[in-house]
Amino acid sequence: MEIMQPFKTEVDLQTGVFSPTRDIITRKLSNMATMYADVEAAQALLDSGDDPIIYEVHVTELPEVEGHILHCTTKIYPGKIGDEYFMTKGHYHAQRDQGEVYVGLSGEGYLVMQTESGESSAIAMKPGTAAYVPPYWAHRTINTGSEPFVFFAAWAGEAGHDYGTIERDGFRQLIVEKDGHLQVIDNPKYD
Amino acid sequence: MEIMQPFKTEVDLQTGVFSPTRDIITRKLSNMATMYADVEAAQALLDSGDDPIIYEVHVTELPEVEGHILHCTTKIYPGKIGDEYFMTKGHYHAQRDQGEVYVGLSGEGYLVMQTESGESSAIAMKPGTAAYVPPYWAHRTINTGSEPFVFFAAWAGEAGHDYGTIERDGFRQLIVEKDGHLQVIDNPKYD
Repeated sequence: MEIMQPFKTEVDLQTGVFSPTRDIITRKLSNMATMYADVEAAQALLDSGDDPIIYEVHVTELPEVEGHILHCTTKIYPGKIGDEYFMTKGHYHAQRDQGEVYVGLSGEGYLVMQTESGESSAIAMKPGTAAYVPPYWAHRTINTGSEPFVFFAAWAGEAGHDYGTIERDGFRQLIVEKDGHLQVIDNPKYD
Repeated sequence: MEIMQPFKTEVDLQTGVFSPTRDIITRKLSNMATMYADVEAAQALLDSGDDPIIYEVHVTELPEVEGHILHCTTKIYPGKIGDEYFMTKGHYHAQRDQGEVYVGLSGEGYLVMQTESGESSAIAMKPGTAAYVPPYWAHRTINTGSEPFVFFAAWAGEAGHDYGTIERDGFRQLIVEKDGHLQVIDNPKYD
């Protein structure tokens, strides 16, 4: 039997940067422009030649099979598209009965979740917030502050990712700034 | 189907303390005196009426079944029994093919690991160190500094704990201070 050797990654707890560098996933506005409620604002920004990085994920390469605990840091930059704060795409786990844990490292944000049976949840996060995504909950994170929002995540190797369901349906709840205040509102386009 | 609701725990990233309080496991010297190489030093301390807390674990209550990501913080106090630094009991997972991830939060220490097929590993940890315990590796943490060593851990609900094998056999490697310097040495009592 082949046994994997232990290893470590040094994580900058302020920026989320891994050393040594592992896989880095970069999501720009053009990778997710249609996921924002204000598609016109997103398109206008892109048309002006500006394609900002929305978030970066530093992730440890591990086999995506049962027995491994996959882990990453996510850094969401501050900003808004229309009234809506910069956010991750969000996903269900391909294997729906798999949970995940998040730990806030720097900045502040929200974790928005929903189930396929109609439940919604929005949890505020700051450094030290350990937020639990139980099995069956889709999850998206949002930067609601003026600095990068960085958090650590761990999940089981067999969980997998289903981005397609959220790309098609969106989330029921949006985190927006209205009249200078953060609001959790119903997504007018969700049905 | 009953779906668990999301929740969060605020973790003090310096001390590891959970708010609200969840399960707290406290290990005093009397709970593990025979695990130290210098059993006489441990017994002398207990005989003098001193039974120091070696470490505390703050752990989120979750079902110990597949699909959940269990998580905790561990705070190991600074100190030594003879030449050997304060440490956790250490364990294999009952389900050997389950890994775990650690993230150093404050202080400094070591993560000592071994397999049943004869391999050993010792990894130094500090704040930000994400240390990966692959499947099949028993794991123990040691505080090698002068402040509490605090880290976060995440593992799969089905992993379980086997403390008995380590209580019987010990670890092959010990982390000790000799002549004022940290040394990783072979355990003279291990066979």
